[in-house]
Amino acid sequence: MEYRKIKDEEDHDDVATDVKSLKGKFHTGASSNIAMATLGVGSSERINWKRKGVVTCALTILTSSQAILIVWSKRAGKYEYSVTTANFLVETLKCALSLLALTRIWKNEGVTDDNRLSTTYDEVKVYPIPAALYLFKNLLQYYIFAYVDAPGYQILKNLNIISTGVLYRIILKRKLSEIQWAGFILLCCGCTTAQLNSNSDRVLQTSLPGWIMAIVMALLSGFAGVYTEAIIKKRPSRNINVQNFWLYVFGMAFNAIAIVIQDFDAVANKGFFHGYSFITVLMILNHALSGIAVSMVMKYADNIVKVYSTSVAMLLTAVVSVFLFNFHLSLAFFLGSTVVSVSVYLHSAGKLR
Amino acid sequence: MEYRKIKDEEDHDDVATDVKSLKGKFHTGASSNIAMATLGVGSSERINWKRKGVVTCALTILTSSQAILIVWSKRAGKYEYSVTTANFLVETLKCALSLLALTRIWKNEGVTDDNRLSTTYDEVKVYPIPAALYLFKNLLQYYIFAYVDAPGYQILKNLNIISTGVLYRIILKRKLSEIQWAGFILLCCGCTTAQLNSNSDRVLQTSLPGWIMAIVMALLSGFAGVYTEAIIKKRPSRNINVQNFWLYVFGMAFNAIAIVIQDFDAVANKGFFHGYSFITVLMILNHALSGIAVSMVMKYADNIVKVYSTSVAMLLTAVVSVFLFNFHLSLAFFLGSTVVSVSVYLHSAGKLR
Repeated sequence: MEYRKIKDEEDHDDVATDVKSLKGKFHTGASSNIAMATLGVGSSERINWKRKGVVTCALTILTSSQAILIVWSKRAGKYEYSVTTANFLVETLKCALSLLALTRIWKNEGVTDDNRLSTTYDEVKVYPIPAALYLFKNLLQYYIFAYVDAPGYQILKNLNIISTGVLYRIILKRKLSEIQWAGFILLCCGCTTAQLNSNSDRVLQTSLPGWIMAIVMALLSGFAGVYTEAIIKKRPSRNINVQNFWLYVFGMAFNAIAIVIQDFDAVANKGFFHGYSFITVLMILNHALSGIAVSMVMKYADNIVKVYSTSVAMLLTAVVSVFLFNFHLSLAFFLGSTVVSVSVYLHSAGKLR
Repeated sequence: MEYRKIKDEEDHDDVATDVKSLKGKFHTGASSNIAMATLGVGSSERINWKRKGVVTCALTILTSSQAILIVWSKRAGKYEYSVTTANFLVETLKCALSLLALTRIWKNEGVTDDNRLSTTYDEVKVYPIPAALYLFKNLLQYYIFAYVDAPGYQILKNLNIISTGVLYRIILKRKLSEIQWAGFILLCCGCTTAQLNSNSDRVLQTSLPGWIMAIVMALLSGFAGVYTEAIIKKRPSRNINVQNFWLYVFGMAFNAIAIVIQDFDAVANKGFFHGYSFITVLMILNHALSGIAVSMVMKYADNIVKVYSTSVAMLLTAVVSVFLFNFHLSLAFFLGSTVVSVSVYLHSAGKLR
């Protein structure tokens, strides 16, 4: 419902057009930056390129350490806190960090039209949409487990890769070359292959409602990502910390709703912070930082880079886990990693000229 | 030993140079045929393109039905004949079919320099080499099973793909574009992924001697294929049936040696045709026809096309087996097949201009 509402919204086309007009500038910047840097064409291009690299690396490292923290917390058997309260705190922390960054910017550069916190209804009206989509997706997650087991769900989550690519094309109207599409299909296959285990075949027995839910969830998640990018890129000169602040304010609001829907009893009886440990705090910190990194990637790169970054992070996690938790890497993991590596190469080799 | 001897041979460079001089004509023909056909540039180009397509399809269909016959023969429990005698008969049949084709050509076109059967020492001296390499490889096969089990060997056989690509580049000095190399690595990963099962991980425990033998065998097999292409393409105007005849004569000779080494007792005691059945005859017929198809692919296309063709055949076999033998396709098979399909696309999309 929410999905269709947004699709029909007048404003959506504005975003697309707006992003489209940006595209020329942005896309050229992304695709021919190395060449330009070599030729000495403008240092701002080089700064863009550098910033894109830094935020992408940050996202990769934060995402892979995220997964390691989750394994660690499961190992320690500490998973008794309410996930919704933790998510709420993540949004609150991100909000606080954005404000902190803003106060520093105001001190150094003064308050301008681009970095002032006050906003208009026209600017802010689309900000709740990604948060609402994520809430809806998270609620669906409770129902899909009636049709798929947890490892099967991990496999099906790779559909996100395809849905992000398709929605990126349709909604942001940005083009990928044929070679890049080939790379994107490979990314999905490679990630899934790397996660294969002896029980993976069970996912093929998923019933039709299970498949439909998995596809809907992939679309919701892809749509939320692509829509966030559209929002952030609609006003390129607007300071990212202001944009983040408003995104996260609505994130806080929607996560408060999630607490009420899912964990009201637990929180009312055992308290907001029940079951928290040192590792929970670390996880919240990590999630907040990687959330900010995602926003930065949306601002300075795009959803495609985000998907590649988090996929590579998944592989990094497995490799690091070999040393930390004595994990054994399977042949499927090696094959999947090779396919993902080739896919990363194809994404950069296949750039549209 | 044989391998190094060939590598050091003077003649080898001649072959490479000769093939290289052909390359311009051949490669351009291959890569821009559709465009040329559209522009109406020469009908001979179109005939080449058509011939290439026909032999490639023939090889794919014959190879996939080959595997199905093997499954069928195993199911029927009929595998008690000597494989070496069957191989000998395959070579004999190929020889006979080449002669049959030649007699028709002589009747229609008369005997020319290009289609006469008589040969010179200079032409024929390299013909025993591929047959010798295959014999050596087949003998090694008996020893590798001390280090790897049969399913593990099936997995390791995919190293052939990489060795063929590398030797094709080094020996025939033919270039693949970076995208095509990416496709070739994916072909290897995809084929291996499609064959994954719950025991595949054991192959990672293969000891160093096992790996070395697997790599040596892949090199022998790749070298035999690439060398056959070099021999056949060295004299482009020479009739392929004459070239085949000489190749197969040496094939017969080396397979006779294999009978003596491996199955002398069985043949002496139980007779040459012991354990033969209708399905054995079908398999011999199929092997002979696919052997001829391989030669044709070497003449009108190349080793890379051969590898793609046999890999796609492997996937076709599995799909057909679902209907014939109630096989179940695994998730790994779907992922591997998708990767192979993308790889086929990349091979054609990545053609050097």
